[in-house]
Amino acid sequence: MVSRTIDIDDDALIRGIAASAFDTARDDAEAVLASVRSDLDAVQLRLRIDAVRDANAGAPASRASGGELATFRQLLAERELDGFLVPVADEYQGEFIPPSAQRLRWLSGFSGSAGLAVVLVDRAAIFVDGRYELQANDEVDVDIFELHHLMRSPPRDWLASHASAGARIGFDPWIHTPSGLRGLGEGCRKAGAELVPAEPNPVDTAWTDRPPEPVGPVAPHEIRHAGVSAEDKRRQIARKIAGQGHEAAVISAPASVAWLLNVRGSDVANTPLPLSRAIIYADGRVDWFIDPRKIGDAVREALGSEVAVRAPGGLGETLDRLGGEGASILADPATTPEWIVRRLAAAGVAPSTSGDPCEAAKATKNPVELDGARACHIRDGAALCEFLAWLSREAPGGGVTERSAAERLAELRQRDASYRGPSFDTISGSGPNGAIVHYRVSERTDRTIADGDIYLVDSGAQYPDGTTDVTRTVFISGDAATRPSDEARDRFTRVLKGHIAIATARFPEGTTGGRLDTLARVSLWQAGLDYDHGTGHGVGSYLGVHEGPQRISSRQDATALEPGMILSNEPGYYRPDAYGIRIENLVAVQKWEGGGEDGRNMLCFETLTLAPIDRLLVESALLTPEERNWMNGYHRWVRETLAPSLSPTARHWLEEATVPI
Amino acid sequence: MVSRTIDIDDDALIRGIAASAFDTARDDAEAVLASVRSDLDAVQLRLRIDAVRDANAGAPASRASGGELATFRQLLAERELDGFLVPVADEYQGEFIPPSAQRLRWLSGFSGSAGLAVVLVDRAAIFVDGRYELQANDEVDVDIFELHHLMRSPPRDWLASHASAGARIGFDPWIHTPSGLRGLGEGCRKAGAELVPAEPNPVDTAWTDRPPEPVGPVAPHEIRHAGVSAEDKRRQIARKIAGQGHEAAVISAPASVAWLLNVRGSDVANTPLPLSRAIIYADGRVDWFIDPRKIGDAVREALGSEVAVRAPGGLGETLDRLGGEGASILADPATTPEWIVRRLAAAGVAPSTSGDPCEAAKATKNPVELDGARACHIRDGAALCEFLAWLSREAPGGGVTERSAAERLAELRQRDASYRGPSFDTISGSGPNGAIVHYRVSERTDRTIADGDIYLVDSGAQYPDGTTDVTRTVFISGDAATRPSDEARDRFTRVLKGHIAIATARFPEGTTGGRLDTLARVSLWQAGLDYDHGTGHGVGSYLGVHEGPQRISSRQDATALEPGMILSNEPGYYRPDAYGIRIENLVAVQKWEGGGEDGRNMLCFETLTLAPIDRLLVESALLTPEERNWMNGYHRWVRETLAPSLSPTARHWLEEATVPI
Repeated sequence: MVSRTIDIDDDALIRGIAASAFDTARDDAEAVLASVRSDLDAVQLRLRIDAVRDANAGAPASRASGGELATFRQLLAERELDGFLVPVADEYQGEFIPPSAQRLRWLSGFSGSAGLAVVLVDRAAIFVDGRYELQANDEVDVDIFELHHLMRSPPRDWLASHASAGARIGFDPWIHTPSGLRGLGEGCRKAGAELVPAEPNPVDTAWTDRPPEPVGPVAPHEIRHAGVSAEDKRRQIARKIAGQGHEAAVISAPASVAWLLNVRGSDVANTPLPLSRAIIYADGRVDWFIDPRKIGDAVREALGSEVAVRAPGGLGETLDRLGGEGASILADPATTPEWIVRRLAAAGVAPSTSGDPCEAAKATKNPVELDGARACHIRDGAALCEFLAWLSREAPGGGVTERSAAERLAELRQRDASYRGPSFDTISGSGPNGAIVHYRVSERTDRTIADGDIYLVDSGAQYPDGTTDVTRTVFISGDAATRPSDEARDRFTRVLKGHIAIATARFPEGTTGGRLDTLARVSLWQAGLDYDHGTGHGVGSYLGVHEGPQRISSRQDATALEPGMILSNEPGYYRPDAYGIRIENLVAVQKWEGGGEDGRNMLCFETLTLAPIDRLLVESALLTPEERNWMNGYHRWVRETLAPSLSPTARHWLEEATVPI
Repeated sequence: MVSRTIDIDDDALIRGIAASAFDTARDDAEAVLASVRSDLDAVQLRLRIDAVRDANAGAPASRASGGELATFRQLLAERELDGFLVPVADEYQGEFIPPSAQRLRWLSGFSGSAGLAVVLVDRAAIFVDGRYELQANDEVDVDIFELHHLMRSPPRDWLASHASAGARIGFDPWIHTPSGLRGLGEGCRKAGAELVPAEPNPVDTAWTDRPPEPVGPVAPHEIRHAGVSAEDKRRQIARKIAGQGHEAAVISAPASVAWLLNVRGSDVANTPLPLSRAIIYADGRVDWFIDPRKIGDAVREALGSEVAVRAPGGLGETLDRLGGEGASILADPATTPEWIVRRLAAAGVAPSTSGDPCEAAKATKNPVELDGARACHIRDGAALCEFLAWLSREAPGGGVTERSAAERLAELRQRDASYRGPSFDTISGSGPNGAIVHYRVSERTDRTIADGDIYLVDSGAQYPDGTTDVTRTVFISGDAATRPSDEARDRFTRVLKGHIAIATARFPEGTTGGRLDTLARVSLWQAGLDYDHGTGHGVGSYLGVHEGPQRISSRQDATALEPGMILSNEPGYYRPDAYGIRIENLVAVQKWEGGGEDGRNMLCFETLTLAPIDRLLVESALLTPEERNWMNGYHRWVRETLAPSLSPTARHWLEEATVPI
């Protein structure tokens, strides 16, 4: 096909691609682009996208000025609403949200990953969890928005107290789920108010310089990485749906759609998924609701004839038709927008509220995905070792800041041709900044890493064969006279004991991650210490770095660990204003090949992550012989596996870093 | 008051007392009896009761002959019922059930503590859990009753498959709770059948030689044991009810009533509670529904004017009155009979379904109760040591059977004047019998304990100052040549490590028992082993040996452990057809007085039980230095505490049994 020159009609596409996380550093970027719009001149398209991006980057960052709330309230009055709910969440309930959907940030300035504002006529409040209290205080004008703790002083109670009787509180039914709305609706009812769905979202009307929605190109996720064909996956899920007596399931989680169809995208940062939804039918056919401008020939070809690409605007009609047929439909109440549930209800269908039928299948990786995870962890581990070797050389002299360290790590990862970007924003914290669990380095907080510091770096990457997530905590030491305090070594070693307890645990089939969480904490507990986050989260395969349903946490947990599940193992300890410690490897659940005389089926973990654990911070006397064996065996494996891929200096550093203790 | 001679009208009372667990060996028996019926000649009364008991003991035990089911079905037909539910449970949902309420046993022969029969016109099934499959197979005519697993093949599914459309399946609304009926009702609905309340219970009509209901005398639970007056308890619970916006709460659990009113009774075996119910009002007044023949002057006096003793038959009218007043009423759906909920519904009230308001307060023992627990454990421990010393002397020669051992232990406990009977039926199992978790020795299974056996004894006692529950596993050895196998020592030591892990655990406030359960299992898991029961149950204070809500188990658990809660710590290991191992002490939750730099509030356990752990079964090399320290410290404490109370031979034995390892 002869490529044509870009004309003015393609401007929206170009601005859409520029608004996506489509990474210009990607080696295969032009190929994808050419495939998506093979009728356009690819080079010219790329230049135009870059130009839009450069222009955006030059523009001042949108920051709430305080005027937004007044404009917004005026709009509410015009639409006869007495209030409105503005969550962080977007239409896809995702972890990473495109700029076009960062409505709470526009309204309030708050940029955290979880939270909700409630705007009433005469007062407004913002609710954030413990991670974000300081940040919200910093970013939000607390004279305008009362600041509340999301759990201790939840919005449902605030609504019950402050909504007026008879008030109509609006919400955008696309960005709330039935599960999420339940409590808010109860709060309103207590006050005699009611929740009213309102479209279009008045924030979008008031937000005049709202960025375009992302139009990130989509690529097939090749079978050599996916392990199972999309056709087989569709058959598998279709059987499950049919077995539960349903004719169709609405799949609202974009990660589930990406897994099901073996596609990856570039709409949002950190997770290579296209924002899209699907309906899968009991015969294995799929209607895929996605902006068709994201899809090129290669994807269409890979999808085959049983997957129909449909414009997102056509979803309503399809739901109406299903409703008209009286179909039994499955829709996960935790991920399905209220809009869909209401549309189905209007068509006479109350969807069954079992969970997402793809979730469990996506969580249990197949042998090809597990091999991919092992392979990408070697490449990722080599980059991390190069980084740690560099850091140990450069940091004691004072030439490295938290920011420059994170940049260096990204550069080292980029040297691998298969690198597809970070899996989350790197946490790079030294000294007291390391004690902030969800620290994000900024210009304002950036700190020069100093000799004698404890430095924590939590980072991860996306590769076509897998997703990584690793934390190391190292002591910065220029010479033998600079050594960590006894306290720091004690704390680090207790965290390490917790990490080893998970890494070496054997447990019966049927055990939940929640039952293992205690093992990671008990050596801290014995000293009266603990950490206020989970021990492990599920990790996707070239998908979300946080996925369910598997986890290792203190919360109630009904999900049994299954062979093939990948989780993080990341106990920590944080001494406020002093230092933070976290040791994180990814692990995969596998069958234990030993076995007692009972013939019980036991599971265990295989550690995937390769990087040395700082021996300077280990108090060897606190370890049992078995723990020392694990440490030395792990280090031997890291050394033997990574050494061939390393530069001579890094190899030398690694040899010293993995000497047995 | 001059006592009068017993006349014919008192026959029912005498038979009722004889049907109770009122223990003629109790030192204060006559005093209680005199107090209950001070107008009767106490000695004469006692003689008559003993005579009835002797006559009952001489009569052949009631055993289902198979004819019961035919009689029963005829009755159902007469009452236009197509089926009936016959659970083990009685009107009080208790663990120990009086003979008059052992309906399932009468109908089917099954004598286990949990289960349900469903009788239809043409088929019948009995559902029991894994503990009772063998026993049910033994006791029940499986040609008449299909035998099913209560969880794997639950009655709800069986009803859904086998009830006819339009069938009326009856149930006795007194012996089912709303929680228990939910699934059964769903099963019926699936089949197009319906559940129909039926009074009186047709079993009671068919069961011509049904024993009388127990009329066990009630005694005050003195303040020196209870620690808090009944008046204060009533005020505390009333405040709680009022705080939740209720005007009254129906207390259906007899243990809660006994706790609330500071009374103890003798209606059932093992737990010193009167079968009764109460309604407590938001002003602290109580209506106590109990057979007045159980109550003597001392109790009436102790109750005061705010507690009205009412005949059980008056409950319905009281509920009607409350309903008529439109009162907001609390009723725990897990313990309240369906009858009460329906009566309230008929009166226009849907009770609030929060839990039993006494349960949490009863579970957290006050300082007086904790002191009582410590005191009675010393006396109980001394008796157990005398027993273990005797056993180590007598058993190797072959002169002791499982039954004679249990009898000896009961005799030794009885030497303490405050002993009030067992807290459950002693488990006394040697060799392969020890591997049966809920083993009850019978004439048929009784086994002579042999040299070289592993012997397990799990027993407990009731004292006015507390309830005990202890398991020891010992190796029977006549000389130094008889030693346990390496395997047995390995398994015992792994169980011991689990026991020590719980005993020494520190954990943050808010931790559930379920989160600690893993600690008790992890050393078994590492060898591919496990045990199929919980690690710990709550224990009452001169009340039920099993109480909630606290527990240490693998089941979902939302109850945080609180200071003052008493639990068992009883990991085990069972090698079928070979041996069983369990090491059980009671522990009390207490605040940990240490504390890390975080200022976190931590809790820990205080071990209450005193008895040596068999050193012959310990593989010392498997213990860490900390575990060895715990063991030696525990043994020192046991030796120093018990030695003064022991006979010279037992003291000598204890000294050897507690030599440091």
